[in-house]
Amino acid sequence: MNMFASVPMKVIGPVAIRGLEVNDEVIVPLATYETPLWATTNRGAKVSRQAGGILATIIDERMTRSIVLQADTAQTCLEVINALEERREELKSLVSSSSRFAKLLDINHQVAGNLLFIRFEFLTGDASGHNMVTQAADNLMTWILQNYQQLKHVSVSGNYCVDKKVSAVNGILGRGKYVVTEMVIPREVCRATLKTEPEKIAELNIKKNLIGSILAGGLRTANAHFANMLLGFYLATGQDAANIVEGSQGLVHTEMRGDDLYFSVTVPNIIVGTVGNGKDLPFVQENMALMGCDVHGEPGQNARRLAIICAATVMCGELSLMAAQTNHGELMRAHIAMERR
Amino acid sequence: MNMFASVPMKVIGPVAIRGLEVNDEVIVPLATYETPLWATTNRGAKVSRQAGGILATIIDERMTRSIVLQADTAQTCLEVINALEERREELKSLVSSSSRFAKLLDINHQVAGNLLFIRFEFLTGDASGHNMVTQAADNLMTWILQNYQQLKHVSVSGNYCVDKKVSAVNGILGRGKYVVTEMVIPREVCRATLKTEPEKIAELNIKKNLIGSILAGGLRTANAHFANMLLGFYLATGQDAANIVEGSQGLVHTEMRGDDLYFSVTVPNIIVGTVGNGKDLPFVQENMALMGCDVHGEPGQNARRLAIICAATVMCGELSLMAAQTNHGELMRAHIAMERR
Amino acid sequence: MNMFASVPMKVIGPVAIRGLEVNDEVIVPLATYETPLWATTNRGAKVSRQAGGILATIIDERMTRSIVLQADTAQTCLEVINALEERREELKSLVSSSSRFAKLLDINHQVAGNLLFIRFEFLTGDASGHNMVTQAADNLMTWILQNYQQLKHVSVSGNYCVDKKVSAVNGILGRGKYVVTEMVIPREVCRATLKTEPEKIAELNIKKNLIGSILAGGLRTANAHFANMLLGFYLATGQDAANIVEGSQGLVHTEMRGDDLYFSVTVPNIIVGTVGNGKDLPFVQENMALMGCDVHGEPGQNARRLAIICAATVMCGELSLMAAQTNHGELMRAHIAMERR
Amino acid sequence: MNMFASVPMKVIGPVAIRGLEVNDEVIVPLATYETPLWATTNRGAKVSRQAGGILATIIDERMTRSIVLQADTAQTCLEVINALEERREELKSLVSSSSRFAKLLDINHQVAGNLLFIRFEFLTGDASGHNMVTQAADNLMTWILQNYQQLKHVSVSGNYCVDKKVSAVNGILGRGKYVVTEMVIPREVCRATLKTEPEKIAELNIKKNLIGSILAGGLRTANAHFANMLLGFYLATGQDAANIVEGSQGLVHTEMRGDDLYFSVTVPNIIVGTVGNGKDLPFVQENMALMGCDVHGEPGQNARRLAIICAATVMCGELSLMAAQTNHGELMRAHIAMERR
Repeated sequence: MNMFASVPMKVIGPVAIRGLEVNDEVIVPLATYETPLWATTNRGAKVSRQAGGILATIIDERMTRSIVLQADTAQTCLEVINALEERREELKSLVSSSSRFAKLLDINHQVAGNLLFIRFEFLTGDASGHNMVTQAADNLMTWILQNYQQLKHVSVSGNYCVDKKVSAVNGILGRGKYVVTEMVIPREVCRATLKTEPEKIAELNIKKNLIGSILAGGLRTANAHFANMLLGFYLATGQDAANIVEGSQGLVHTEMRGDDLYFSVTVPNIIVGTVGNGKDLPFVQENMALMGCDVHGEPGQNARRLAIICAATVMCGELSLMAAQTNHGELMRAHIAMERR
Repeated sequence: MNMFASVPMKVIGPVAIRGLEVNDEVIVPLATYETPLWATTNRGAKVSRQAGGILATIIDERMTRSIVLQADTAQTCLEVINALEERREELKSLVSSSSRFAKLLDINHQVAGNLLFIRFEFLTGDASGHNMVTQAADNLMTWILQNYQQLKHVSVSGNYCVDKKVSAVNGILGRGKYVVTEMVIPREVCRATLKTEPEKIAELNIKKNLIGSILAGGLRTANAHFANMLLGFYLATGQDAANIVEGSQGLVHTEMRGDDLYFSVTVPNIIVGTVGNGKDLPFVQENMALMGCDVHGEPGQNARRLAIICAATVMCGELSLMAAQTNHGELMRAHIAMERR
Repeated sequence: MNMFASVPMKVIGPVAIRGLEVNDEVIVPLATYETPLWATTNRGAKVSRQAGGILATIIDERMTRSIVLQADTAQTCLEVINALEERREELKSLVSSSSRFAKLLDINHQVAGNLLFIRFEFLTGDASGHNMVTQAADNLMTWILQNYQQLKHVSVSGNYCVDKKVSAVNGILGRGKYVVTEMVIPREVCRATLKTEPEKIAELNIKKNLIGSILAGGLRTANAHFANMLLGFYLATGQDAANIVEGSQGLVHTEMRGDDLYFSVTVPNIIVGTVGNGKDLPFVQENMALMGCDVHGEPGQNARRLAIICAATVMCGELSLMAAQTNHGELMRAHIAMERR
Repeated sequence: MNMFASVPMKVIGPVAIRGLEVNDEVIVPLATYETPLWATTNRGAKVSRQAGGILATIIDERMTRSIVLQADTAQTCLEVINALEERREELKSLVSSSSRFAKLLDINHQVAGNLLFIRFEFLTGDASGHNMVTQAADNLMTWILQNYQQLKHVSVSGNYCVDKKVSAVNGILGRGKYVVTEMVIPREVCRATLKTEPEKIAELNIKKNLIGSILAGGLRTANAHFANMLLGFYLATGQDAANIVEGSQGLVHTEMRGDDLYFSVTVPNIIVGTVGNGKDLPFVQENMALMGCDVHGEPGQNARRLAIICAATVMCGELSLMAAQTNHGELMRAHIAMERR
């Protein structure tokens, strides 16, 4: 039995990106068994170049862990919440003193009966930060249990974090990088490269991504297949790819801008890093270099660049599939053609 | 740039499984960058052997695709729904005539204003069935559009399917294999192997998996980390691993049975196959053979065996992490120890 | 202390409705403390007359109750599910033998570990059916426990029903009357009566009802204030108004039809009856007569007519508020003016 | 046609409450057509007296309105977010200058493509605050549009508020009063008054309220019938009862405390006031006086007392129904007996 297995990887053509930390055509690797994904994403990348580039914006970034404790009563929980509010600077110092990169940003809580869930939010430099925040939360919990002996330990993770599981909290309070990408696609590009009309993509987005997802009982989800591109990108860059679960919860919004199509992709929970588990693998280092995410600079800069490229890649794949689905039969024909090659 | 990248894979120790199509100790491969997952899952596998095996039950299986059409009015949609109900046998024949394996099981619909979403449910033999059901849905849509010209094409996929996205519909109407695994763990095994007490796991399940997930705004989700094991298993067996999104939506239920712990894992949306995309890779074929999922038999048998092994693997990893989280500090100590090796 | 309190009620102007069981201008009563609701709904009613009427379609009707039982293992649950499938006719007879109106339509189930949830779906004549289905489910549970002694009682209601609580299951499997109402509003009517343009309502629906609700972590919810009209209508007609919880989970879909606005309201869970608790109150009987819901006919006819009028009323109020919200400041000005009167 | 209709109302027996602003036995009115609700809630009230009272804690209070604006790009949205962060004191002054009671607490936002949703959170004194926050949000929007002309008006309410609709945001960021009530019920009281055992209630809560609701695709919902008590209480006290939609999204948590039952009810979104629409009706004023919610004191005190009594009433009804559902057949027998009276 071999210990290392092969996942097919391919670099897709240059994606044109404009944004805070990326102003380039960037070549992107995608690892997937579903090889038609390459052609799909590539077509979107071509549009990005023809349309003058994807504008990327990072709205927010943070990584989280929620501990759960219990008291005799909710009143005790509330007293501790209020006390911690007063001592927030102490908590921040505690975090900073035990890690070079972790920085406590904010604290949220929920009380359910006598259970107290405390959600800590951190900056974690260039790491995705899973372990860093678990370590920090562990330290914070130890400190809280020492200082508030009216509380008892339940768990270092109370599922109000929330890691690799469907939730609303990650989108509302934030977890990972919250990235929006936008592009204005001229009608001519739409016709020539995507074989469709701007209005047809705009309409399909409403009927399928918005209404279809609502009917399906979706939760903060309105897209066709964000998860596919996220998976390929995460695997190719050594990420903990199970985070595509929350990554999949994003949305597409479009509007007509005169004759052209404004197309946007909002991905609120991109969880990526350029250091940490999986990042020492040779192909990962090659891929980071390929995308310019291996520069020496202020902590966090590489990870933010990586998140932007990730979101732009999601956009390329999403746009292309949406275009295909506006035409009866195109999707199947494309798949069949692709697999015959 | 290399075209193939390496994902670390490892076989975990034998998992003991009892169920309709598996009565064995089975060795399971898991591909992951998060290497502590192997030790975690292995500990659960050890418990499975000590506790007399995991009982696995397949409650249901089906694969789906939902088309979306539109009419002038909802009344027209309703007329077509009623007409299709009458002609269901014709639809079944249409599906069977164009595929050796696809078999139409059931049809569901939603009407939103003048939009008609039709969700087709199929058996797909040993394939996970993504392409098979898209092809079948495409044929059905063509037939419907020909027979009911009061309808117009919107898309072959209307997000009421729903693929690789968070939803409630997949759990309620079914998509993939719906597998329940169960084990009764003697207190002695709990203590010796899991370093905890049955009551502590039962309590943590309520406070973290059930209540914590509810507070987080989870949707049909009550587990600690199903997604991790699903990802590792899907990658090791050539699956379309983006399906961990719906796979992650499952739940743990426990109860005390006298002195022992009844522990169950319900995974309603396991989407796996033993043939199709990704299954021709040499390491995948090795892994299928390792698990006995490459036998010649009735269509569907290999895929069902694979789904059972998958769910049992999810259980092993889930149990072990839950146990670790009952003890303050154990999780971090384990991670640190693991990564130093 | 007085035993009866006063809720302000008012009849709104005639609503024009076209549909299977209503082809009339109908006067509708609304009971509410929020008196601006009358003017709002009235404006929508005026539009309905000017636009040639609201087309109403009942897509489905059923009432449900889900029992929960438990076994030793999921396999036992599955065996019982399969056995009940074989004996469905017996179950139907059992229901019909103990009630003149209750008729078993369908059965769905969920298995979670060793727990078995069975969701029974019934027709209930002109009653909303809460008690009828509880009685029927109680009988069915008794019969099942007698015939399958491997099962144990947990509860006659397992929250998979689901009554007066947020869920996805009610929209997907059905509970109550599933009604769609539609109207094509000429631009001139939009301008004259609603003081806005068709495009502005269509845009607002996308940005507020669809996208805003998705961001809020809504579940099968895309509307501005269905709950307001439902509450007023339910109180005025003696319904169990706590069912506005599931009633609120519906959606608005619009599209431009040339120069005019297609506006639709989908309300999948209207739970109303013309007989039963609360229906003997004199004002309720007056109101039923006012709307023509007190005729002698086949069971269910009055309740269906009532549901259609209810959905049309929801549409009138929804349309009017949406129009107001397209204009900056109109909402507040209207409220202030209203309350000064 | 009469303009005022009668809703049956009844005062239930004294509920014993201990908490920040209530230390009394309080008599509570409930208006409902579902008259068995009185007996149900009364039984719980009896338990509250026998068990030494319900402990009530207000975790949080705020009222919200979310405007929606749009820009050319997400980058512009982000710039405005950052600018408003700097000028938060100006925004607070703006709110305070135009209202005696409204006080801006916090601001949250979401960006979806080029759409900017800003959620304002306020204190609103003794009013539930619907109109107060709409007025304040309208003023804030006017100011923002004047100061940031790169933004365009979409709507004063963008459904990220969110009023009378299912969501996760209200529970996570807060809307209304977040109240937890707790009680420890001796086994003897459980047996004598509730006719059941503590363990049976604890078990049913797990299987029905937690697991059943999760399977149903519930969202932050784990209770049997909060909505019933909320509706009766809201109608009896002149509230805008459509707010039971978000009110219904709460949860029950229990645990065994030695031989006794710890029973808690968490209701995060109680939206009540003692002044404003509906509060001038004579029966409402009588009811406010009955509960001691008409005292002259600091603004907010009466509304907080009312919220506590409301949550305690929810607890009484919830506990009693849960107890009844532990026994096969009790629910139906009780309903039938009740309706015969």
